[in-house]
Amino acid sequence: QQKCLEQQTEMRVQLLQDLQDFFRKKSEIEMEYSRNLEKLAERFMAKTRSTKDHQQYKKDQNLLSPVNCWYLLLNQVRRESKDHATLSEIYLNNVIMRFMQISEDSTRMFKKSKEISFQLHEDLMKVLNELYTVMKTYHMYHAESISAESKLKEAEKQEEKQIGRSGDPVFHIRLEERHQRRSSVKKIEKMKEKRQAKYSENKLKSIKARNEYLLTLEATNASVFKYYIHDLSDLIDCCDLGYHASLNRALRTYLSAEYNLETSRHEGLDIIENAVDCLEPRSDKQRFMEMYPTAFCPPMKFEFQSHMGDEVCQVSAQQPVQAELMLRYQQLQSRLATLKIENEEVKKTTEATLQTIQDMVTIEDYDVSECFQHSRSTESVKSTVSETYLSKPSIAKRRANQQETEQFYFMKFREYLEGSNLITKLQAKHDLLQRTLGEGHRAEYMTTRPPNLPPKPQKHRKPRPRSQYSAKLFNGDLESFIKVLAPATPVVDLNTSCYNGHCLTKAEADHYV
Amino acid sequence: QQKCLEQQTEMRVQLLQDLQDFFRKKSEIEMEYSRNLEKLAERFMAKTRSTKDHQQYKKDQNLLSPVNCWYLLLNQVRRESKDHATLSEIYLNNVIMRFMQISEDSTRMFKKSKEISFQLHEDLMKVLNELYTVMKTYHMYHAESISAESKLKEAEKQEEKQIGRSGDPVFHIRLEERHQRRSSVKKIEKMKEKRQAKYSENKLKSIKARNEYLLTLEATNASVFKYYIHDLSDLIDCCDLGYHASLNRALRTYLSAEYNLETSRHEGLDIIENAVDCLEPRSDKQRFMEMYPTAFCPPMKFEFQSHMGDEVCQVSAQQPVQAELMLRYQQLQSRLATLKIENEEVKKTTEATLQTIQDMVTIEDYDVSECFQHSRSTESVKSTVSETYLSKPSIAKRRANQQETEQFYFMKFREYLEGSNLITKLQAKHDLLQRTLGEGHRAEYMTTRPPNLPPKPQKHRKPRPRSQYSAKLFNGDLESFIKVLAPATPVVDLNTSCYNGHCLTKAEADHYV
Repeated sequence: QQKCLEQQTEMRVQLLQDLQDFFRKKSEIEMEYSRNLEKLAERFMAKTRSTKDHQQYKKDQNLLSPVNCWYLLLNQVRRESKDHATLSEIYLNNVIMRFMQISEDSTRMFKKSKEISFQLHEDLMKVLNELYTVMKTYHMYHAESISAESKLKEAEKQEEKQIGRSGDPVFHIRLEERHQRRSSVKKIEKMKEKRQAKYSENKLKSIKARNEYLLTLEATNASVFKYYIHDLSDLIDCCDLGYHASLNRALRTYLSAEYNLETSRHEGLDIIENAVDCLEPRSDKQRFMEMYPTAFCPPMKFEFQSHMGDEVCQVSAQQPVQAELMLRYQQLQSRLATLKIENEEVKKTTEATLQTIQDMVTIEDYDVSECFQHSRSTESVKSTVSETYLSKPSIAKRRANQQETEQFYFMKFREYLEGSNLITKLQAKHDLLQRTLGEGHRAEYMTTRPPNLPPKPQKHRKPRPRSQYSAKLFNGDLESFIKVLAPATPVVDLNTSCYNGHCLTKAEADHYV
Repeated sequence: QQKCLEQQTEMRVQLLQDLQDFFRKKSEIEMEYSRNLEKLAERFMAKTRSTKDHQQYKKDQNLLSPVNCWYLLLNQVRRESKDHATLSEIYLNNVIMRFMQISEDSTRMFKKSKEISFQLHEDLMKVLNELYTVMKTYHMYHAESISAESKLKEAEKQEEKQIGRSGDPVFHIRLEERHQRRSSVKKIEKMKEKRQAKYSENKLKSIKARNEYLLTLEATNASVFKYYIHDLSDLIDCCDLGYHASLNRALRTYLSAEYNLETSRHEGLDIIENAVDCLEPRSDKQRFMEMYPTAFCPPMKFEFQSHMGDEVCQVSAQQPVQAELMLRYQQLQSRLATLKIENEEVKKTTEATLQTIQDMVTIEDYDVSECFQHSRSTESVKSTVSETYLSKPSIAKRRANQQETEQFYFMKFREYLEGSNLITKLQAKHDLLQRTLGEGHRAEYMTTRPPNLPPKPQKHRKPRPRSQYSAKLFNGDLESFIKVLAPATPVVDLNTSCYNGHCLTKAEADHYV
């Protein structure tokens, strides 16, 4: 039993030693992991810290949504780094210390239990020795009692023989002989009495010894049973004292650390998920345009530049040109009607194609949970990963399909833009003519009121929020506008040469109905 | 504008490159972490695989609860290892690929948008060039119109002069002169007519040019506004096409992987927590005793060994010893009463002390959540860890206190054991005597029925589940029992010498009332 308990304690100490080694090593691993993550975060943080975005980030937190995600991703890595460092430290300074103390405690408890166990053994041995002693005593006294009994019986036999001889019918015995015989009888009687006394004494001793033996036997059996049924159990309890509870606390410390790490990690991921939800092209577009206010703010409209005292600044619909203008107006009207119908078709196709692309790029193909299934056969996890989602042929096919759709979209979109640009121009002329011809009888000339802006072509789109930087660009000066607009494009030379030489090709002129 | 879009695309490509680099590096870190964890688990797995426990584990899963926790801990590390390997692989084969594709797509979208943008610019330049042209034309025709007008006026002036001269009151003019003057008037009239026609023609041309200029101006302003208000926005949309959605999916893949890792980790921790909840000394004690059935199974009770035909095997309460037994019985009775009261006191103290220790070892001091607080000042996390819970002086004090209590407990427990052992022995004798004296009148001697087992001392404890290995040890043979019991203890020699020499000290004899 002692050996078993010792073995158990040794096993415990060994287990606790293993646990300490395990957590020491795991602490190292966590620390290394933490350091690597920290380095990773630091590397990219340093890279972005100097950029303009970051300055803006520090300033007003008003970031483009993808950049925001990127920063949160780096933050998350830093968070993970810190948490794993904390985990490592808790292992080292708390969990391992606890296991050390439990090991210490277990050994101490075992020692104390061993002392008690020795004492119990000693007591039990005394009881057994006593039993052995009283049994031997009983045997001895009983043997003596038997021997005394047999001696008594022998004496009784002799006495009987003597009495039988004295009661002999032969009368002619010598006196001397008679005398001798009488003393012999007396002697035998005396001996018998002595033996009787001896027997009684031994018999009593034997009974007492047997009683003592029986009582001791009873006590011994009770003691042995108590030892096995209660004391051994108590001894094991003593060895166990606090072991499970302390182990429980040590492991719960580990669990608490792990659960907290998890919670922290989860919080961080939720922040990122929130930012991912906020990935939004519209607001980014606005931010982007606000970043470059001069480039995206519409210029002032061009004003009519009258020539040397020409005071007429409206379309003149006097007699000689009126008919021509009327004809032109009618032509514009019918042309516009056709164009609009055509372009509406193109627009519908464009929008449908765009929707197809949107559906393609928003397909929900990002669930990787099946990679984290822990099957019973713990070995074959890795193989499944590569089989999921990203099987190369399917991806290639999907991408080819997507690009084809894109190609078609851009073609249609271009067609639509060309159409709508033409419509815009013609519509503007049409509207101006309509106003002019309608006003023909009232307003002759000499009115200096500028022409109204033509109504914008109707398009089903949400209104773009107007830039707050409504700078008066170029003040509607055409030449300076051309100069600014032109340098950015290779079209410059072509156009510059064009308006210097007044040469418009026939194809180009087609646009100028 | 083109520059801005180009810059934006460059920024995007750079961001996506950073994201790829980031995940590539993180994938390496995760893989290294996974490998380290795997090594750690493997090291301890290998160590335990050969041991007896593990064999038993494989066999019947019936482990001591701390060993079970230990195996689950190792399993958890293996699980974490696998999950981080999966994470690493998802980064590498899925997330990074996505970012690569987004980068590719962004560049392609930008190129296509650029083409469209060029086209729009070209169109806009054409419109502006046309405006410039028609303005110049207007200016030219207007200038010609003015010049024609002034020439006409000059002609009219000359005509007036001529008419004024012919209407002169001076009659005596030469005929020749008269003829000359008439032809001059005709010439002037002809010129005036010509100039009048020229002027009308130029005037009409000028009006038409001005009308054309005004119409083109209207169309140009409409085009420029359309470009700024709609087309630029559409162009940015083209550049953005799919960018946010694809980025969203890539980041969601990352999130899905991380969340799944977390779920898996959590499941593993829950399994461990469950095992920690099952850390239970009572069932472990039973398993421990079942592991060593021979050591913890109570032996057969010792039987009465009668001596050479002694047929009496019960306590004899015949006349010569009856009074003595009676006296002894009464002595036992009063002694037991005193002892029981005394021992009950000791027992209460022992139990109270044990409760104190239990309270000490089950104190809930394992919550480490405060170590994982992420304060706004992200720098000072590490310092807080060392301050919590495990401040050395408080720990030392607690441990000292605990050990003192332990000391006291063991002292009291020993006292209690001694007392209860004595009580057990005396109680057994007392009960046997009671039975004997009570039966005195009926059972004289010659009855071979064995004495009843004394009733067990009453103790308030749950019954220990009996071992199923109820081997009949030694068959109640005293000497062989002593031999087995003795060798494990140093008490052996002392006792062996004792029962060889029948020497019991007086102090020892005190126990044998």
